[in-house]
Amino acid sequence: MDRVEQMKKFFALDRFVAGAGVEIVEIDETHATVRAKIEDRHLNADGVVQGGMLYTAADFAFAVLANFLHPVTVTQCGSITYLAAAVTDEITATATETARNGHNTVSEVIVKDGAGKTVCICHFNGFIKVNKN
Amino acid sequence: MDRVEQMKKFFALDRFVAGAGVEIVEIDETHATVRAKIEDRHLNADGVVQGGMLYTAADFAFAVLANFLHPVTVTQCGSITYLAAAVTDEITATATETARNGHNTVSEVIVKDGAGKTVCICHFNGFIKVNKN
Amino acid sequence: MDRVEQMKKFFALDRFVAGAGVEIVEIDETHATVRAKIEDRHLNADGVVQGGMLYTAADFAFAVLANFLHPVTVTQCGSITYLAAAVTDEITATATETARNGHNTVSEVIVKDGAGKTVCICHFNGFIKVNKN
Amino acid sequence: MDRVEQMKKFFALDRFVAGAGVEIVEIDETHATVRAKIEDRHLNADGVVQGGMLYTAADFAFAVLANFLHPVTVTQCGSITYLAAAVTDEITATATETARNGHNTVSEVIVKDGAGKTVCICHFNGFIKVNKN
Repeated sequence: MDRVEQMKKFFALDRFVAGAGVEIVEIDETHATVRAKIEDRHLNADGVVQGGMLYTAADFAFAVLANFLHPVTVTQCGSITYLAAAVTDEITATATETARNGHNTVSEVIVKDGAGKTVCICHFNGFIKVNKN
Repeated sequence: MDRVEQMKKFFALDRFVAGAGVEIVEIDETHATVRAKIEDRHLNADGVVQGGMLYTAADFAFAVLANFLHPVTVTQCGSITYLAAAVTDEITATATETARNGHNTVSEVIVKDGAGKTVCICHFNGFIKVNKN
Repeated sequence: MDRVEQMKKFFALDRFVAGAGVEIVEIDETHATVRAKIEDRHLNADGVVQGGMLYTAADFAFAVLANFLHPVTVTQCGSITYLAAAVTDEITATATETARNGHNTVSEVIVKDGAGKTVCICHFNGFIKVNKN
Repeated sequence: MDRVEQMKKFFALDRFVAGAGVEIVEIDETHATVRAKIEDRHLNADGVVQGGMLYTAADFAFAVLANFLHPVTVTQCGSITYLAAAVTDEITATATETARNGHNTVSEVIVKDGAGKTVCICHFNGFIKVNKN
């Protein structure tokens, strides 16, 4: 079983992510992408994708990338900026590592709707517990 | 129907929050508290409450407070700092407004586990679309 | 020499803070306050207190409190939300610790103008290198 | 006088930035870079570049880019993640716009030391007051 399959198997144990319908699309040395089909159950009281759902996808993309590149990493801080309401049938979240030093890894995650429009941007700082580098 | 009941009725339309099992506990002029019983479905691959679930509760507490104090408010930016893994049967998130000026409202949200231990802290900046003040 | 005097003596070595005219007002177990008289040299191109100056005061208030409570602490992440332009002859920044767990300390810092109006709010997450607790 | 010269002339009025020794290196449609020679006056009590100085350079790079692309923009929220202590004779801060929608512009700013090592990363969300787009 290759590393990507190992990651998918490990993260299949994330019950909240599975319940939210978020799944891993791809992982490589530079980025990780996750996706969720949007259904009625993902919407807020205004009928757009709920902020917690957007964050869940973003946080998961970061967790997948960080743990692929640097097992074991735990998230320390995150930030989120909302750019547009998401009225869509799908969202994707792509994490890209922007910096790493010692026990710290920093990634940007861009969440897009099905039409490719950016709906929010997150940044995460992870602490690498076991640092191979 | 009083204002608190109106808020509960409006936010009952938030399907993602309802699906995550987060419910409004109380709302007043200074804070809003929401709560969720933690079940297996809220856990991540490490068996602790998933980060997206913690954020969903925090974001919802802010949305409830901001819209109670200043209808209509939309979240612009948020940040989250994780302090401890949540191994618990319940989480609560309490939002308190720390500043307001013109179209901006800023709140701190503290998320605690069932034993009262802080597991993460969020801060939100909302834009007040319709400003009564 | 008491602990507060020790802190003032240590931080007198912070040349950037000294150059910016920021000085310690008080420190106790719950908060630290710093202050700067605002002069022409602190203004930006729009004639209001420059954002970096506001941040410098906020970051310093956090550094003072964190190192008073938990020597030695280093800042990991910070966030800032601007609420109002500062047109004033003085700013104060007060840091209050909102949570602590293991190696992490989180504080809120409120920056006010001379009239007591909040101009920005910062949040900092520090890593406690030497943890006495 | 071209747009870049206009920007340099306008921002020459930023007295705090000038006092900190930060100057514009280049501006184009995709990024803005600023630089400061590091002297003793930029150091903190530990003898490394002070956090407020790093933030001042980052915030300025964002202000220059945002106002070049979208006059007039005001910063709403910012975040900063520290990766390494800066022991160096120069820092540069480069802002790159990562998203824009309606009245919002989001940029990442990477601050490097003289050897090209990333010392901190900032993210800014600006509100575009006058939106030409």
